[in-house]
Amino acid sequence: MLKGKLLIGQSGGPTPVINASLAGIILAAQVHAEIEDIYGMVHGIEGVLKDELIDLNQEARGDIQNLLYTPASALGSCRHKIKDSEYERILQVCKLHNIRHFVYIGGNDSMDTCMHISALAQSMSYELQVIGVPKTIDNDLVVTDHSPGYGSAARFMALAARDAGLDLEAMATFEDVSILEAMGRNAGWLAAASSLAKASDEDAPHLVYIPEQTFDENRFLDSVSKVHSRLQRVFVVVCEGVRDASGDFVGSSRMKETRDAFGHTLNTFTTGVAAYLAEIVNEKLGLRARFLRPVIIGRAMSACVSETDRQEAYQVGQEAVKQLASDQTGLMITLHRVSSAPYACETGIVPLKQVANAEKLLPQNFYDSNQNMPNENFKAYALPLVGEAWQPAIRLNKKRVPPLAST
Amino acid sequence: MLKGKLLIGQSGGPTPVINASLAGIILAAQVHAEIEDIYGMVHGIEGVLKDELIDLNQEARGDIQNLLYTPASALGSCRHKIKDSEYERILQVCKLHNIRHFVYIGGNDSMDTCMHISALAQSMSYELQVIGVPKTIDNDLVVTDHSPGYGSAARFMALAARDAGLDLEAMATFEDVSILEAMGRNAGWLAAASSLAKASDEDAPHLVYIPEQTFDENRFLDSVSKVHSRLQRVFVVVCEGVRDASGDFVGSSRMKETRDAFGHTLNTFTTGVAAYLAEIVNEKLGLRARFLRPVIIGRAMSACVSETDRQEAYQVGQEAVKQLASDQTGLMITLHRVSSAPYACETGIVPLKQVANAEKLLPQNFYDSNQNMPNENFKAYALPLVGEAWQPAIRLNKKRVPPLAST
Repeated sequence: MLKGKLLIGQSGGPTPVINASLAGIILAAQVHAEIEDIYGMVHGIEGVLKDELIDLNQEARGDIQNLLYTPASALGSCRHKIKDSEYERILQVCKLHNIRHFVYIGGNDSMDTCMHISALAQSMSYELQVIGVPKTIDNDLVVTDHSPGYGSAARFMALAARDAGLDLEAMATFEDVSILEAMGRNAGWLAAASSLAKASDEDAPHLVYIPEQTFDENRFLDSVSKVHSRLQRVFVVVCEGVRDASGDFVGSSRMKETRDAFGHTLNTFTTGVAAYLAEIVNEKLGLRARFLRPVIIGRAMSACVSETDRQEAYQVGQEAVKQLASDQTGLMITLHRVSSAPYACETGIVPLKQVANAEKLLPQNFYDSNQNMPNENFKAYALPLVGEAWQPAIRLNKKRVPPLAST
Repeated sequence: MLKGKLLIGQSGGPTPVINASLAGIILAAQVHAEIEDIYGMVHGIEGVLKDELIDLNQEARGDIQNLLYTPASALGSCRHKIKDSEYERILQVCKLHNIRHFVYIGGNDSMDTCMHISALAQSMSYELQVIGVPKTIDNDLVVTDHSPGYGSAARFMALAARDAGLDLEAMATFEDVSILEAMGRNAGWLAAASSLAKASDEDAPHLVYIPEQTFDENRFLDSVSKVHSRLQRVFVVVCEGVRDASGDFVGSSRMKETRDAFGHTLNTFTTGVAAYLAEIVNEKLGLRARFLRPVIIGRAMSACVSETDRQEAYQVGQEAVKQLASDQTGLMITLHRVSSAPYACETGIVPLKQVANAEKLLPQNFYDSNQNMPNENFKAYALPLVGEAWQPAIRLNKKRVPPLAST
C-alpha cells in the first residue's frame, strides 16, 4: 500500500446515505498505518482546485459514526465541469499535500473525473491510487446492480405514491387527479419506484411516465380520462425528464430554461412537468388536478432511508479502502447480486472507463408501455433495495348497508 | 346509553392518523350491547345524503386494527358545504336506519355540521347523540391543546426542512435558495413546525413565513439577501396562506383562482406561493432558487407518523364512545396538557358551539417577527407532539488543512 495521505470527496446530487459511504471509507482507512492522514474536499473537486481541504482525523469518532444517519453530503458537494486545464492543478494540489489515495463518491460524471485524474497521474508518473465509489438516487450507473442512494429515494417514492394516493382516494368527490413528479433526467428508475407499494389496480399510482418512452400528450390525456372513468380518481407519476416526439422536455414551452455546468437542462429550477400536466388536465379534461413536487425532499428524507441501502453504502465505502490496500487504482466499486431470493449482494470492481459517462436506463422488459406501468420484473429487481417491509395500509371492504331513504 | 346504531364519518382533509381515531371508535363501540350496529359514511356527509352507508361490523378485526397504520380517511372524506335544506335529509336517513349515535371526525367546519345536526335532532325531538372527534393537520381547532394529525404532519415538516436543508447546504456552490411550501390556509402551525429540528443559526429553515403576519415582498427579498450574504444559502419555509397588506394571497396575481364549496380559496390547485417566491428571488436577486411542494405527501406520509399522535388519535376516538355511553351529546373531544415535562395529555370535552367555525391561529408569543422564526415557546409547545426523538444529523467540524498551493 502506498504511503501517503487519503483524500475523499463527494460529488453531484446528495443522497440520504452518501455519508454512510464516507463513514465507511474513513473508518476503514483509519486502521491503515500507511495512510498518514485523511483529508476531505470542501465541495468536491472545487475544494481541491481552491486547495480547501479539511482534516477528517480531527473529527470526533462519534460524529463519524453519526454520518450513517446524516442525509446529504457532509463534506459539501458540487456540480463542477472540470476544464482540461484544471486537471493539472488538481494533480499539483495532490502532490503538494502528498495525497496518494484519492476516493471520489459520485455518479457517472464523477467517474469521468476520476478517470481523467488517474490517467493524468499516470502520464506524469505521479503515484496516485484513484477509486470511485458509486452514488446516485438516479440508479443510472452501469455495470453495478444498483447504486447506493437509489434504495432510499425509491422507498420515499413508493410510500409517497401509496400514501398520497390513499389521500386522493379519500377525497375523490372533491378532487380528481394528483400528479407526482419524480427526479431523473434521462432514467425512469425513481418514477418506476413509485409503483413498489402498489398491490392492486385500485392502488396508486395508476399511470407512470418514464423518459425512456416518448411522451404523447394526447395519449396521456386519453389514459387519464379512462382511469378516471373507471376509478373516479387518477394518480399519475411523471419523471421530470419526459420528452415529446421532438425530443423537447414536456411542458418546456411554458418554462424558462436553465442549464448546469455540464450543459444539462435543469427542469428542477422551473415549475416542472407535473405542474404543466396538472394545468392541461384541468384545461382539456376539466378535471381538478394538483401536482406534488417534493424534489430534493425525496432524495434527502431521513425518515425513508432503506436500511439495506444504508448498509450497502457503508460497505462500498469500506471496499474502496480494501482496494487501495491491494494497490488497485482506476476502479469503481460495484454491487453485484449473488442471489435474488433471499436477496444478497456482494461488492465488486469495474474499470472506471467502463462506467464513466455511461448511463443505465430502465430496461424495456421492466416496463409495460401499454399499461404505462412498471411490471413484475422491475418489482422483483427493486423491492429488495427499498429495505424492510412497510406496515400494510388496508382498504376497508365497505359492505354496503341497503339504502332505506328514497332518492 | 341509547339503544340504536352508531354512524361514523370522516370529513375534510385527511391526516396520517385519522384512521386511528376511526379504529378507536369502532373498537370501543363493539363492546357496548346498546350499539346495535356500527355504520360508516361513504365520503362523510355526502354518503349520508345519498344514503350510502357501510356496515363496519362486517370488517375483519385485523383490518380495523391495521387502520392504526393506514394513512388518509379509510371511509372516504368530503368537503361538502351543507345547505340548510339538507339537514332534514340527514336526520331522515338517520331515523330510517335507527341511528342514535353520530360521531364525526373532522375540523372546525365539521364541528359546525355536528352542531347543526344536534340542534335539529333536538328540535325534532329525535333522540340522537352527536359527538365530534378533532382532526386536522392545521392544528387550528380551538380549546383543545392540539389536534390529532398535527403532530405527524409537523414531524414531516421538521424532517423535510432539516434534511432538504442539509442537501441545500451540500450544494451551496451550485444553488442558493430552497423554498418549501407548508399547508395551512390561515394558520401557520405547520410552517412553524419546520423549525422543530433546527438547532443552530446554520440549520434550515432560515426564514419562516406564516399567514398571521402580513407578508411584505421587499422585506422578504431583503431578508433572503441578508441570509445569503451570511451563509451562502437560504432555506425558506412559506405557508401557502400568506397574504400581503391588501389581504391578497401572495403571488395570486400570477395564479388562477379556485375555490371550494365553503368559498375558501384553494391555493393548492395553483402553482402556489413557493413557486412564485422562487421566481421573484431569481428575477430580483439573481439567486438560483427552487421550490419544494410536497403538498398532500406531508399530510399522508406514513413514514413520518408521530407515535404520540397515533396514540392520541386512537384515544380521542375511544373517548367519544365513553361520552356516548355517559349519554352525552353536542360535544367535541379535546386534549388538554396536564403536564409539560414530562409531557402528558388527557382527554376532555367542550360544547360544539365553542369550537364550530372558530380558528386557533399561531399565538404572537410563539413567533419572533424580527427573525421571521418561531421561538422557544413554540418549540416547548410543539416538540412533544412530533413523537420520538430523531437520530441527530451531524455537521462536521471541518478543520481546515493549511493550504499549500499558490492561488
